[in-house]
Amino acid sequence: MCQLLGMNCNVPTDICFSFTGFQARGGLTDQHQDGWGIAFFEGKGVRQFLDPLPSAHSKIAELVSSYPIKSKNVVAHIRKATQGDVRLENTHPFMRELWGFYWIFAHNGNILDFNPKVLGPYVPVGTTDSEKLFCWMMQELRLRYGNSCPDTESLFSSISELSKEIGQQGEFNFLMSNGNLLFAHCSTQLTHIIRKAPFSTASLKDQDLTVDFSSVTSEKDRVAIIATTPLTDDENWIRLEPGTLYLFQEGAISRQEKTIPWIQKIKSIS
Amino acid sequence: MCQLLGMNCNVPTDICFSFTGFQARGGLTDQHQDGWGIAFFEGKGVRQFLDPLPSAHSKIAELVSSYPIKSKNVVAHIRKATQGDVRLENTHPFMRELWGFYWIFAHNGNILDFNPKVLGPYVPVGTTDSEKLFCWMMQELRLRYGNSCPDTESLFSSISELSKEIGQQGEFNFLMSNGNLLFAHCSTQLTHIIRKAPFSTASLKDQDLTVDFSSVTSEKDRVAIIATTPLTDDENWIRLEPGTLYLFQEGAISRQEKTIPWIQKIKSIS
Repeated sequence: MCQLLGMNCNVPTDICFSFTGFQARGGLTDQHQDGWGIAFFEGKGVRQFLDPLPSAHSKIAELVSSYPIKSKNVVAHIRKATQGDVRLENTHPFMRELWGFYWIFAHNGNILDFNPKVLGPYVPVGTTDSEKLFCWMMQELRLRYGNSCPDTESLFSSISELSKEIGQQGEFNFLMSNGNLLFAHCSTQLTHIIRKAPFSTASLKDQDLTVDFSSVTSEKDRVAIIATTPLTDDENWIRLEPGTLYLFQEGAISRQEKTIPWIQKIKSIS
Repeated sequence: MCQLLGMNCNVPTDICFSFTGFQARGGLTDQHQDGWGIAFFEGKGVRQFLDPLPSAHSKIAELVSSYPIKSKNVVAHIRKATQGDVRLENTHPFMRELWGFYWIFAHNGNILDFNPKVLGPYVPVGTTDSEKLFCWMMQELRLRYGNSCPDTESLFSSISELSKEIGQQGEFNFLMSNGNLLFAHCSTQLTHIIRKAPFSTASLKDQDLTVDFSSVTSEKDRVAIIATTPLTDDENWIRLEPGTLYLFQEGAISRQEKTIPWIQKIKSIS
Protein backbone atom coordinates (compact mmCIF):
# COMPACT_ATOMS: atom_id res chain seq x y z
CA MET A 1 0.00 0.00 0.00
CA CYS A 2 0.94 3.64 -0.13
CA GLN A 3 1.54 6.29 2.47
CA LEU A 4 -0.23 9.60 2.90
CA LEU A 5 0.88 12.90 4.41
CA GLY A 6 -1.28 16.00 4.80
CA MET A 7 -0.96 19.37 6.48
CA ASN A 8 -3.66 21.91 7.34
CA CYS A 9 -2.76 25.13 9.21
CA ASN A 10 -4.13 28.48 10.30
CA VAL A 11 -1.05 30.31 8.95
CA PRO A 12 1.11 29.41 5.94
CA THR A 13 3.71 26.96 7.21
CA ASP A 14 6.46 24.95 5.56
CA ILE A 15 6.37 21.15 5.66
CA CYS A 16 10.15 20.58 5.29
CA PHE A 17 10.53 18.76 8.64
CA SER A 18 7.63 16.32 8.20
CA PHE A 19 8.39 15.78 4.52
CA THR A 20 12.00 14.87 5.33
CA GLY A 21 10.80 11.94 7.45
CA PHE A 22 8.07 10.99 4.98
CA GLN A 23 10.45 11.10 2.03
CA ALA A 24 12.72 8.50 3.64
CA ARG A 25 9.90 5.94 3.48
CA GLY A 26 10.09 5.99 -0.31
CA GLY A 27 12.96 3.52 -0.61
CA LEU A 28 15.11 4.16 2.47
CA THR A 29 13.27 3.22 5.70
CA ASP A 30 10.32 1.63 3.89
CA GLN A 31 9.48 0.05 0.55
CA HIS A 32 7.21 2.61 -1.16
CA GLN A 33 9.43 3.02 -4.20
CA ASP A 34 6.95 3.50 -7.01
CA GLY A 35 6.92 7.27 -7.17
CA TRP A 36 5.87 10.15 -4.99
CA GLY A 37 4.18 13.50 -5.22
CA ILE A 38 3.28 16.56 -3.21
CA ALA A 39 0.93 19.48 -3.82
CA PHE A 40 1.12 22.83 -1.99
CA PHE A 41 -1.70 25.35 -2.11
CA GLU A 42 -0.62 28.98 -2.12
CA GLY A 43 -3.80 31.02 -2.16
CA LYS A 44 -5.92 29.43 -4.86
CA GLY A 45 -2.84 28.29 -6.79
CA VAL A 46 -1.13 24.92 -6.53
CA ARG A 47 2.48 23.85 -6.82
CA GLN A 48 2.59 20.19 -7.62
CA PHE A 49 5.77 18.11 -7.70
CA LEU A 50 5.43 14.60 -9.12
CA ASP A 51 8.12 12.00 -9.68
CA PRO A 52 7.83 8.33 -10.67
CA LEU A 53 11.25 7.75 -9.02
CA PRO A 54 11.63 6.70 -5.36
CA SER A 55 11.42 9.78 -3.12
CA ALA A 56 14.46 8.75 -1.06
CA HIS A 57 16.66 9.15 -4.15
CA SER A 58 14.82 11.95 -5.99
CA LYS A 59 16.56 15.22 -6.74
CA ILE A 60 13.16 16.93 -6.76
CA ALA A 61 12.29 15.49 -3.33
CA GLU A 62 15.64 16.82 -2.09
CA LEU A 63 14.61 20.30 -3.28
CA VAL A 64 11.17 20.02 -1.67
CA SER A 65 12.63 18.93 1.69
CA SER A 66 15.08 21.85 1.77
CA TYR A 67 13.05 24.65 0.14
CA PRO A 68 10.56 26.16 2.59
CA ILE A 69 7.33 26.57 0.59
CA LYS A 70 4.75 28.12 2.93
CA SER A 71 1.26 26.70 2.57
CA LYS A 72 -1.95 26.27 4.57
CA ASN A 73 -2.86 23.00 2.85
CA VAL A 74 -0.52 20.30 1.61
CA VAL A 75 -1.20 16.76 0.35
CA ALA A 76 1.63 14.28 -0.28
CA HIS A 77 1.84 10.61 -1.22
CA ILE A 78 4.45 7.91 -1.71
CA ARG A 79 3.40 4.98 -3.82
CA LYS A 80 3.60 1.21 -3.64
CA ALA A 81 1.82 0.36 -6.87
CA THR A 82 -1.24 -1.91 -6.79
CA GLN A 83 -3.33 -0.94 -9.82
CA GLY A 84 -1.59 0.95 -12.67
CA ASP A 85 2.05 0.80 -13.81
CA VAL A 86 4.80 2.99 -12.36
CA ARG A 87 4.33 5.96 -14.64
CA LEU A 88 4.06 9.72 -14.15
CA GLU A 89 0.34 9.76 -14.99
CA ASN A 90 -0.29 7.20 -12.21
CA THR A 91 1.57 9.25 -9.58
CA HIS A 92 -0.52 10.82 -6.79
CA PRO A 93 -1.71 13.41 -5.87
CA PHE A 94 -4.10 14.03 -8.74
CA MET A 95 -5.52 17.44 -9.60
CA ARG A 96 -8.75 18.64 -11.20
CA GLU A 97 -10.61 21.96 -11.23
CA LEU A 98 -14.14 22.25 -9.84
CA TRP A 99 -16.11 25.49 -9.26
CA GLY A 100 -13.02 27.60 -9.97
CA PHE A 101 -10.88 25.82 -7.36
CA TYR A 102 -8.18 23.24 -7.85
CA TRP A 103 -8.88 19.99 -5.99
CA ILE A 104 -6.05 17.70 -4.94
CA PHE A 105 -6.52 14.04 -4.07
CA ALA A 106 -4.28 11.21 -2.84
CA HIS A 107 -5.38 7.69 -1.89
CA ASN A 108 -4.01 4.82 0.14
CA GLY A 109 -5.78 1.53 -0.42
CA ASN A 110 -7.09 -0.69 -3.16
CA ILE A 111 -10.63 -0.73 -4.54
CA LEU A 112 -11.16 -3.73 -6.80
CA ASP A 113 -14.87 -4.09 -7.51
CA PHE A 114 -16.15 -0.55 -7.99
CA ASN A 115 -16.32 0.70 -11.54
CA PRO A 116 -18.47 3.80 -11.74
CA LYS A 117 -18.97 5.53 -15.09
CA VAL A 118 -16.74 8.55 -15.60
CA LEU A 119 -17.78 9.94 -18.95
CA GLY A 120 -18.51 13.49 -17.98
CA PRO A 121 -16.08 16.34 -17.54
CA TYR A 122 -13.67 14.30 -15.38
CA VAL A 123 -11.92 11.39 -17.07
CA PRO A 124 -8.85 9.62 -15.69
CA VAL A 125 -5.60 10.22 -17.58
CA GLY A 126 -3.78 7.26 -16.00
CA THR A 127 -4.87 3.73 -15.09
CA THR A 128 -5.13 3.76 -11.28
CA ASP A 129 -8.32 2.99 -9.37
CA SER A 130 -7.49 6.08 -7.27
CA GLU A 131 -7.68 8.64 -10.08
CA LYS A 132 -10.89 7.05 -11.35
CA LEU A 133 -12.51 7.30 -7.92
CA PHE A 134 -11.40 10.93 -7.61
CA CYS A 135 -12.87 11.74 -11.05
CA TRP A 136 -16.11 10.05 -10.05
CA MET A 137 -16.30 12.07 -6.82
CA MET A 138 -15.71 15.33 -8.75
CA GLN A 139 -18.38 14.29 -11.27
CA GLU A 140 -20.90 13.45 -8.54
CA LEU A 141 -20.30 16.73 -6.71
CA ARG A 142 -20.87 18.63 -9.96
CA LEU A 143 -24.03 16.62 -10.64
CA ARG A 144 -25.38 17.46 -7.18
CA TYR A 145 -24.55 21.16 -7.13
CA GLY A 146 -24.17 22.23 -10.76
CA ASN A 147 -21.90 25.20 -11.30
CA SER A 148 -21.96 26.60 -7.74
CA CYS A 149 -19.94 25.48 -4.76
CA PRO A 150 -22.32 24.61 -1.89
CA ASP A 151 -21.80 25.61 1.75
CA THR A 152 -19.29 23.63 3.79
CA GLU A 153 -21.94 21.62 5.63
CA SER A 154 -23.55 20.35 2.41
CA LEU A 155 -20.16 19.69 0.83
CA PHE A 156 -18.99 17.68 3.84
CA SER A 157 -22.21 15.72 3.88
CA SER A 158 -21.94 14.86 0.17
CA ILE A 159 -18.28 13.84 0.41
CA SER A 160 -19.21 11.70 3.41
CA GLU A 161 -21.90 9.90 1.36
CA LEU A 162 -19.52 9.35 -1.56
CA SER A 163 -16.80 8.09 0.80
CA LYS A 164 -19.29 5.65 2.27
CA GLU A 165 -20.30 4.36 -1.15
CA ILE A 166 -16.70 3.73 -2.20
CA GLY A 167 -15.42 2.78 1.25
CA GLN A 168 -17.78 -0.20 1.44
CA GLN A 169 -15.90 -1.73 -1.50
CA GLY A 170 -12.38 -1.70 -0.07
CA GLU A 171 -9.65 0.33 1.57
CA PHE A 172 -10.29 4.00 0.96
CA ASN A 173 -7.99 6.16 3.05
CA PHE A 174 -7.70 9.49 1.29
CA LEU A 175 -6.71 13.14 1.65
CA MET A 176 -8.44 15.76 -0.48
CA SER A 177 -8.20 19.56 -0.44
CA ASN A 178 -9.47 22.55 -2.39
CA GLY A 179 -7.04 24.95 -0.72
CA ASN A 180 -9.46 25.98 2.03
CA LEU A 181 -10.65 22.67 3.40
CA LEU A 182 -8.77 19.42 3.93
CA PHE A 183 -10.87 16.24 3.96
CA ALA A 184 -9.31 13.11 5.47
CA HIS A 185 -11.13 9.81 5.17
CA CYS A 186 -9.82 7.09 7.47
CA SER A 187 -10.88 3.72 6.16
CA THR A 188 -8.33 1.60 8.02
CA GLN A 189 -5.28 3.65 8.92
CA LEU A 190 -4.57 7.35 9.44
CA THR A 191 -3.13 9.20 12.40
CA HIS A 192 -2.74 12.87 13.24
CA ILE A 193 -1.28 15.45 15.55
CA ILE A 194 -2.19 19.09 16.18
CA ARG A 195 0.87 21.19 16.90
CA LYS A 196 0.06 24.37 18.84
CA ALA A 197 1.41 26.48 21.70
CA PRO A 198 3.24 25.65 23.90
CA PHE A 199 5.49 24.28 21.15
CA SER A 200 8.35 21.94 21.97
CA THR A 201 10.89 19.80 20.12
CA ALA A 202 10.17 16.77 17.94
CA SER A 203 12.42 14.08 16.47
CA LEU A 204 11.77 12.19 13.26
CA LYS A 205 11.36 8.41 13.34
CA ASP A 206 12.83 7.93 9.86
CA GLN A 207 15.75 10.36 9.84
CA ASP A 208 18.19 11.70 12.40
CA LEU A 209 16.58 15.12 12.66
CA THR A 210 15.12 17.12 15.55
CA VAL A 211 13.38 20.47 15.36
CA ASP A 212 12.51 22.97 18.08
CA PHE A 213 9.10 24.22 16.93
CA SER A 214 9.09 26.99 19.56
CA SER A 215 11.89 28.75 17.66
CA VAL A 216 10.02 28.83 14.33
CA THR A 217 6.40 29.49 15.37
CA SER A 218 4.25 32.15 16.98
CA GLU A 219 1.78 31.69 19.86
CA LYS A 220 -1.24 31.59 17.58
CA ASP A 221 0.04 29.02 15.07
CA ARG A 222 -1.87 25.77 14.79
CA VAL A 223 -0.72 23.03 12.45
CA ALA A 224 -2.49 19.71 11.87
CA ILE A 225 -0.38 16.93 10.40
CA ILE A 226 -2.14 13.80 9.11
CA ALA A 227 -0.13 10.72 8.12
CA THR A 228 -0.54 7.00 7.56
CA THR A 229 1.71 6.30 10.56
CA PRO A 230 3.40 8.70 13.06
CA LEU A 231 6.38 10.62 11.70
CA THR A 232 7.96 11.46 15.06
CA ASP A 233 8.70 9.27 18.06
CA ASP A 234 8.35 11.83 20.84
CA GLU A 235 4.94 13.40 20.15
CA ASN A 236 1.45 12.23 20.98
CA TRP A 237 -0.03 11.11 17.66
CA ILE A 238 -3.73 10.26 17.78
CA ARG A 239 -5.23 7.64 15.47
CA LEU A 240 -8.18 8.71 13.37
CA GLU A 241 -11.14 6.40 13.77
CA PRO A 242 -11.58 3.83 10.99
CA GLY A 243 -14.69 4.39 8.88
CA THR A 244 -14.80 8.15 9.51
CA LEU A 245 -14.54 11.29 7.41
CA TYR A 246 -12.82 14.28 9.02
CA LEU A 247 -12.71 17.90 7.93
CA PHE A 248 -9.66 19.93 8.90
CA GLN A 249 -9.90 23.73 8.86
CA GLU A 250 -7.38 26.26 10.19
CA GLY A 251 -5.28 23.54 11.83
CA ALA A 252 -8.09 21.75 13.69
CA ILE A 253 -10.78 19.12 13.15
CA SER A 254 -13.99 21.05 12.48
CA ARG A 255 -16.29 18.15 11.53
CA GLN A 256 -16.32 14.38 11.59
CA GLU A 257 -18.85 11.78 10.56
CA LYS A 258 -19.00 7.99 10.58
CA THR A 259 -19.07 6.70 7.01
CA ILE A 260 -18.76 2.94 7.47
CA PRO A 261 -20.14 1.60 10.73
CA TRP A 262 -19.63 -1.92 9.44
CA ILE A 263 -15.91 -1.34 8.88
CA GLN A 264 -15.09 -4.96 9.67
CA LYS A 265 -16.89 -6.02 6.50
CA ILE A 266 -14.73 -4.13 4.02
CA LYS A 267 -13.04 -6.48 1.62
CA SER A 268 -9.36 -5.79 2.20
CA ILE A 269 -7.56 -4.63 5.30
CA SER A 270 -3.80 -4.29 5.04
CA MET B 1 4.32 41.20 -22.43
CA CYS B 2 5.45 37.68 -21.66
CA GLN B 3 7.76 35.22 -23.35
CA LEU B 4 6.96 31.73 -24.58
CA LEU B 5 9.14 28.67 -25.06
CA GLY B 6 7.99 25.34 -26.50
CA MET B 7 9.62 22.11 -27.58
CA ASN B 8 8.24 19.29 -29.72
CA CYS B 9 10.43 16.29 -30.62
CA ASN B 10 10.36 12.85 -32.16
CA VAL B 11 12.32 11.35 -29.22
CA PRO B 12 12.23 12.39 -25.56
CA THR B 13 14.77 15.19 -25.22
CA ASP B 14 15.79 17.46 -22.35
CA ILE B 15 15.32 21.20 -22.62
CA CYS B 16 18.10 22.21 -20.20
CA PHE B 17 20.11 24.21 -22.77
CA SER B 18 17.21 26.24 -24.17
CA PHE B 19 15.65 26.73 -20.74
CA THR B 20 18.93 28.10 -19.37
CA GLY B 21 18.80 30.94 -21.90
CA PHE B 22 15.07 31.46 -21.48
CA GLN B 23 15.32 31.53 -17.68
CA ALA B 24 17.77 34.46 -17.83
CA ARG B 25 15.06 36.64 -19.39
CA GLY B 26 13.07 36.46 -16.18
CA GLY B 27 14.91 39.22 -14.38
CA LEU B 28 18.49 38.99 -15.65
CA THR B 29 18.73 39.83 -19.39
CA ASP B 30 15.11 40.96 -19.66
CA GLN B 31 12.33 42.29 -17.46
CA HIS B 32 9.82 39.41 -17.27
CA GLN B 33 9.94 39.17 -13.50
CA ASP B 34 6.37 38.28 -12.60
CA GLY B 35 6.71 34.51 -12.34
CA TRP B 36 7.46 31.63 -14.62
CA GLY B 37 6.36 28.09 -15.27
CA ILE B 38 7.17 25.02 -17.31
CA ALA B 39 5.27 21.81 -18.05
CA PHE B 40 6.88 18.60 -19.31
CA PHE B 41 4.84 15.75 -20.72
CA GLU B 42 6.16 12.29 -19.96
CA GLY B 43 3.82 9.86 -21.69
CA LYS B 44 0.35 11.08 -20.72
CA GLY B 45 1.60 12.51 -17.43
CA VAL B 46 2.71 16.08 -16.79
CA ARG B 47 5.35 17.57 -14.53
CA GLN B 48 4.52 21.18 -13.95
CA PHE B 49 6.80 23.63 -12.14
CA LEU B 50 5.29 27.01 -11.31
CA ASP B 51 6.82 29.89 -9.41
CA PRO B 52 5.57 33.45 -8.89
CA LEU B 53 9.22 34.51 -8.32
CA PRO B 54 11.50 35.75 -11.15
CA SER B 55 12.99 32.74 -12.99
CA ALA B 56 16.49 34.23 -12.97
CA HIS B 57 16.57 33.98 -9.17
CA SER B 58 14.37 30.91 -8.60
CA LYS B 59 15.75 27.83 -6.87
CA ILE B 60 13.19 25.73 -8.73
CA ALA B 61 14.27 27.18 -12.10
CA GLU B 62 17.85 26.32 -11.15
CA LEU B 63 16.79 22.69 -10.63
CA VAL B 64 14.86 22.61 -13.93
CA SER B 65 17.82 24.00 -15.87
CA SER B 66 20.23 21.42 -14.43
CA TYR B 67 18.00 18.32 -14.15
CA PRO B 68 17.55 16.63 -17.54
CA ILE B 69 13.85 15.74 -17.73
CA LYS B 70 13.29 13.98 -21.07
CA SER B 71 10.08 14.96 -22.83
CA LYS B 72 8.57 15.06 -26.32
CA ASN B 73 6.45 18.13 -25.54
CA VAL B 74 7.30 21.05 -23.29
CA VAL B 75 5.59 24.42 -22.77
CA ALA B 76 7.23 27.21 -20.74
CA HIS B 77 6.41 30.83 -19.98
CA ILE B 78 7.91 33.81 -18.19
CA ARG B 79 5.50 36.49 -17.17
CA LYS B 80 5.31 40.27 -17.36
CA ALA B 81 1.91 40.77 -15.76
CA THR B 82 -0.80 42.67 -17.66
CA GLN B 83 -4.13 41.33 -16.34
CA GLY B 84 -4.10 39.53 -12.97
CA ASP B 85 -1.83 40.08 -9.94
CA VAL B 86 1.50 38.33 -9.47
CA ARG B 87 0.17 35.22 -7.76
CA LEU B 88 0.71 31.48 -8.15
CA GLU B 89 -2.78 30.95 -9.61
CA ASN B 90 -2.03 33.51 -12.34
CA THR B 91 1.23 31.82 -13.35
CA HIS B 92 1.32 30.11 -16.77
CA PRO B 93 1.21 27.44 -18.11
CA PHE B 94 -2.31 26.41 -17.10
CA MET B 95 -3.51 22.82 -17.09
CA ARG B 96 -6.91 21.17 -17.57
CA GLU B 97 -8.02 17.65 -18.47
CA LEU B 98 -10.06 16.99 -21.62
CA TRP B 99 -10.91 13.57 -23.12
CA GLY B 100 -8.56 11.81 -20.68
CA PHE B 101 -5.54 13.94 -21.64
CA TYR B 102 -3.96 16.82 -19.80
CA TRP B 103 -3.86 20.01 -21.86
CA ILE B 104 -1.25 22.68 -21.18
CA PHE B 105 -1.58 26.30 -22.31
CA ALA B 106 0.59 29.43 -22.13
CA HIS B 107 -0.20 32.81 -23.66
CA ASN B 108 1.73 35.91 -24.66
CA GLY B 109 -0.44 38.93 -25.34
CA ASN B 110 -3.34 40.86 -23.92
CA ILE B 111 -7.00 40.41 -24.83
CA LEU B 112 -9.09 43.23 -23.42
CA ASP B 113 -12.55 43.09 -24.95
CA PHE B 114 -13.42 39.43 -25.19
CA ASN B 115 -15.45 38.04 -22.32
CA PRO B 116 -16.91 34.68 -23.28
CA LYS B 117 -19.04 32.77 -20.75
CA VAL B 118 -17.13 30.03 -18.93
CA LEU B 119 -19.73 28.39 -16.74
CA GLY B 120 -19.33 24.81 -17.83
CA PRO B 121 -16.76 22.31 -16.67
CA TYR B 122 -13.82 24.71 -17.14
CA VAL B 123 -13.73 27.73 -14.85
CA PRO B 124 -10.66 29.93 -14.29
CA VAL B 125 -9.03 29.68 -10.86
CA GLY B 126 -7.03 32.89 -11.25
CA THR B 127 -7.82 36.29 -12.73
CA THR B 128 -5.85 36.38 -16.00
CA ASP B 129 -7.42 36.82 -19.42
CA SER B 130 -5.17 33.94 -20.54
CA GLU B 131 -6.63 31.27 -18.26
CA LYS B 132 -10.16 32.41 -19.11
CA LEU B 133 -9.47 32.09 -22.84
CA PHE B 134 -7.95 28.65 -22.32
CA CYS B 135 -11.01 27.53 -20.31
CA TRP B 136 -13.28 28.84 -23.07
CA MET B 137 -11.32 26.94 -25.72
CA MET B 138 -11.56 23.71 -23.70
CA GLN B 139 -15.29 24.31 -23.18
CA GLU B 140 -15.88 24.95 -26.90
CA LEU B 141 -13.93 21.83 -27.92
CA ARG B 142 -16.02 19.74 -25.53
CA LEU B 143 -19.22 21.33 -26.85
CA ARG B 144 -18.23 20.47 -30.42
CA TYR B 145 -17.07 16.90 -29.86
CA GLY B 146 -18.71 15.75 -26.63
CA ASN B 147 -16.82 13.06 -24.77
CA SER B 148 -14.65 11.80 -27.65
CA CYS B 149 -11.44 13.29 -29.00
CA PRO B 150 -11.84 13.97 -32.74
CA ASP B 151 -9.21 13.17 -35.38
CA THR B 152 -6.24 15.53 -35.68
CA GLU B 153 -7.58 17.28 -38.78
CA SER B 154 -10.89 18.22 -37.11
CA LEU B 155 -9.14 19.22 -33.90
CA PHE B 156 -6.71 21.46 -35.77
CA SER B 157 -9.53 23.03 -37.73
CA SER B 158 -11.54 23.76 -34.57
CA ILE B 159 -8.56 25.23 -32.71
CA SER B 160 -7.87 27.37 -35.78
CA GLU B 161 -11.45 28.73 -35.70
CA LEU B 162 -11.25 29.46 -31.97
CA SER B 163 -7.84 31.13 -32.40
CA LYS B 164 -9.32 33.32 -35.11
CA GLU B 165 -12.26 34.32 -32.93
CA ILE B 166 -10.04 35.34 -30.04
CA GLY B 167 -7.14 36.58 -32.20
CA GLN B 168 -9.30 39.25 -33.79
CA GLN B 169 -9.65 40.88 -30.37
CA GLY B 170 -5.97 41.34 -29.53
CA GLU B 171 -2.58 39.73 -29.22
CA PHE B 172 -3.00 35.99 -28.97
CA ASN B 173 0.34 34.21 -29.27
CA PHE B 174 -0.03 30.87 -27.54
CA LEU B 175 1.42 27.40 -27.14
CA MET B 176 -0.88 24.49 -26.28
CA SER B 177 -0.17 20.76 -26.03
CA ASN B 178 -1.96 17.55 -25.06
CA GLY B 179 1.26 15.53 -24.93
CA ASN B 180 1.00 14.33 -28.54
CA LEU B 181 0.41 17.53 -30.47
CA LEU B 182 1.83 21.00 -29.94
CA PHE B 183 -0.23 23.91 -31.28
CA ALA B 184 1.51 27.26 -31.75
CA HIS B 185 -0.54 30.31 -32.66
CA CYS B 186 1.49 33.25 -33.89
CA SER B 187 -0.54 36.41 -33.55
CA THR B 188 2.33 38.89 -33.69
CA GLN B 189 5.59 37.28 -32.62
CA LEU B 190 6.91 33.71 -32.51
CA THR B 191 10.00 32.17 -34.03
CA HIS B 192 11.25 28.61 -34.36
CA ILE B 193 14.07 26.32 -35.32
CA ILE B 194 14.14 22.63 -36.22
CA ARG B 195 17.30 20.96 -35.00
CA LYS B 196 18.13 17.79 -36.94
CA ALA B 197 21.15 15.97 -38.42
CA PRO B 198 23.78 17.10 -39.22
CA PHE B 199 23.83 18.64 -35.73
CA SER B 200 26.36 21.33 -34.86
CA THR B 201 27.09 23.69 -31.96
CA ALA B 202 24.89 26.51 -30.69
CA SER B 203 25.54 29.40 -28.30
CA LEU B 204 22.93 31.05 -26.10
CA LYS B 205 22.19 34.74 -26.54
CA ASP B 206 21.33 35.28 -22.87
CA GLN B 207 23.99 33.21 -21.09
CA ASP B 208 27.61 32.30 -21.75
CA LEU B 209 26.86 28.71 -22.76
CA THR B 210 27.56 26.67 -25.89
CA VAL B 211 26.44 23.12 -26.60
CA ASP B 212 27.62 20.65 -29.24
CA PHE B 213 24.35 18.95 -30.19
CA SER B 214 26.18 16.31 -32.27
CA SER B 215 27.59 14.82 -29.06
CA VAL B 216 24.18 14.38 -27.38
CA THR B 217 21.92 13.34 -30.27
CA SER B 218 21.44 10.49 -32.72
CA GLU B 219 21.03 10.78 -36.53
CA LYS B 220 17.25 10.40 -36.38
CA ASP B 221 16.54 13.01 -33.68
CA ARG B 222 14.42 15.98 -34.66
CA VAL B 223 13.68 18.76 -32.18
CA ALA B 224 11.51 21.80 -32.85
CA ILE B 225 12.04 24.77 -30.54
CA ILE B 226 9.50 27.59 -30.62
CA ALA B 227 10.18 30.85 -28.76
CA THR B 228 9.07 34.47 -28.67
CA THR B 229 12.53 35.57 -29.86
CA PRO B 230 15.61 33.50 -30.85
CA LEU B 231 17.48 31.89 -27.97
CA THR B 232 20.79 31.39 -29.78
CA ASP B 233 22.84 33.78 -31.91
CA ASP B 234 24.47 31.30 -34.29
CA GLU B 235 21.50 29.31 -35.59
CA ASN B 236 19.02 30.08 -38.33
CA TRP B 237 15.77 30.88 -36.51
CA ILE B 238 12.74 31.26 -38.76
CA ARG B 239 9.86 33.59 -37.83
CA LEU B 240 6.41 32.08 -37.74
CA GLU B 241 3.95 34.02 -39.85
CA PRO B 242 1.68 36.42 -37.93
CA GLY B 243 -1.98 35.38 -37.94
CA THR B 244 -1.24 31.68 -38.39
CA LEU B 245 -1.85 28.50 -36.40
CA TYR B 246 0.84 25.81 -36.62
CA LEU B 247 0.75 22.20 -35.54
CA PHE B 248 4.04 20.59 -34.51
CA GLN B 249 4.28 16.79 -34.47
CA GLU B 250 7.39 14.63 -34.02
CA GLY B 251 9.68 17.66 -34.26
CA ALA B 252 8.27 19.16 -37.45
CA ILE B 253 5.46 21.43 -38.66
CA SER B 254 2.69 19.10 -39.86
CA ARG B 255 -0.07 21.65 -40.52
CA GLN B 256 -0.50 25.40 -40.72
CA GLU B 257 -3.49 27.63 -41.42
CA LYS B 258 -4.06 31.35 -41.66
CA THR B 259 -6.33 32.48 -38.85
CA ILE B 260 -6.28 36.27 -39.19
CA PRO B 261 -5.67 37.59 -42.72
CA TRP B 262 -6.48 41.08 -41.48
CA ILE B 263 -3.73 40.97 -38.84
CA GLN B 264 -3.09 44.69 -39.17
CA LYS B 265 -6.51 45.36 -37.66
CA ILE B 266 -5.95 43.69 -34.32
CA LYS B 267 -6.31 46.08 -31.46
CA SER B 268 -2.92 45.90 -29.78
CA ILE B 269 0.45 45.11 -31.26
CA SER B 270 3.40 45.27 -28.91
